[in-house]
Amino acid sequence: MTQPVEIHPGLLKDCHDIGPLKLSRLLLMDEAAWPWLVLVPLRPNKVDFDDLDPMDSYRVSDEIRECSMALKRLYSPAKINVAALGNSVPQLHIHIIARFTDDPAWPRPVWGVTEKRRYGEAELRHRIEQIEHEIHSTFGFGDRPG
Amino acid sequence: MTQPVEIHPGLLKDCHDIGPLKLSRLLLMDEAAWPWLVLVPLRPNKVDFDDLDPMDSYRVSDEIRECSMALKRLYSPAKINVAALGNSVPQLHIHIIARFTDDPAWPRPVWGVTEKRRYGEAELRHRIEQIEHEIHSTFGFGDRPG
Repeated sequence: MTQPVEIHPGLLKDCHDIGPLKLSRLLLMDEAAWPWLVLVPLRPNKVDFDDLDPMDSYRVSDEIRECSMALKRLYSPAKINVAALGNSVPQLHIHIIARFTDDPAWPRPVWGVTEKRRYGEAELRHRIEQIEHEIHSTFGFGDRPG
Repeated sequence: MTQPVEIHPGLLKDCHDIGPLKLSRLLLMDEAAWPWLVLVPLRPNKVDFDDLDPMDSYRVSDEIRECSMALKRLYSPAKINVAALGNSVPQLHIHIIARFTDDPAWPRPVWGVTEKRRYGEAELRHRIEQIEHEIHSTFGFGDRPG
């Protein structure tokens, strides 16, 4: 029996939980300026990408690709930014962000560039529904062979 | 016969070419504040991580892990930052950056935070030799089964 892995409170404070993928938990960053997903691989004590074993790194690569393609189908962005930074929250998490040439940070990275704009309630529900539907049609939720 | 893939001039302007890995070309960012590697997967017309096919994405994952571990062995950083952004240079490239709690941007991401400090000649040669030696001892150069 595997110990359940908790999401770090620093991530839950800034994100909404969308649901489990095969390996990772999928979160939505509460930042309305960008469609911005966060993957948290549910393995204990992982900080950097290279802390994953090779098979898990391939699983995360698949999830990054699937999430990127879902964002492209939904929002037709100019670019997808992918990043595992985690200097402030020491649990491995991977940002997947849809970028647009007229977004408030373009072409710079999104971090620290603009004032945070949290989702309104209806806007948040709509965004989560879109993403759930698109991701579900690709690889489903709750399917976690570990 | 595969067409050779050129490195985008925008990358060559800011980086030094260290050599080929199995799939990617390994570059060193000319930024002396951080040990900062850049992987350029040598596949034509790739912009985002999800443009790679699944097998290539696994190869790149291996290279990210190997490069991260080499930086850790060499420099004992507090954290490794990994990112595929590429909003300015439209050829897929992956940053792998050793971060330290006393570095000039910590804990923020490195982009756009500080004035660029290029390597001096001796410093650059020393850094490249360290990295070449460490990476070579792990997986060798010039070995490209494609």
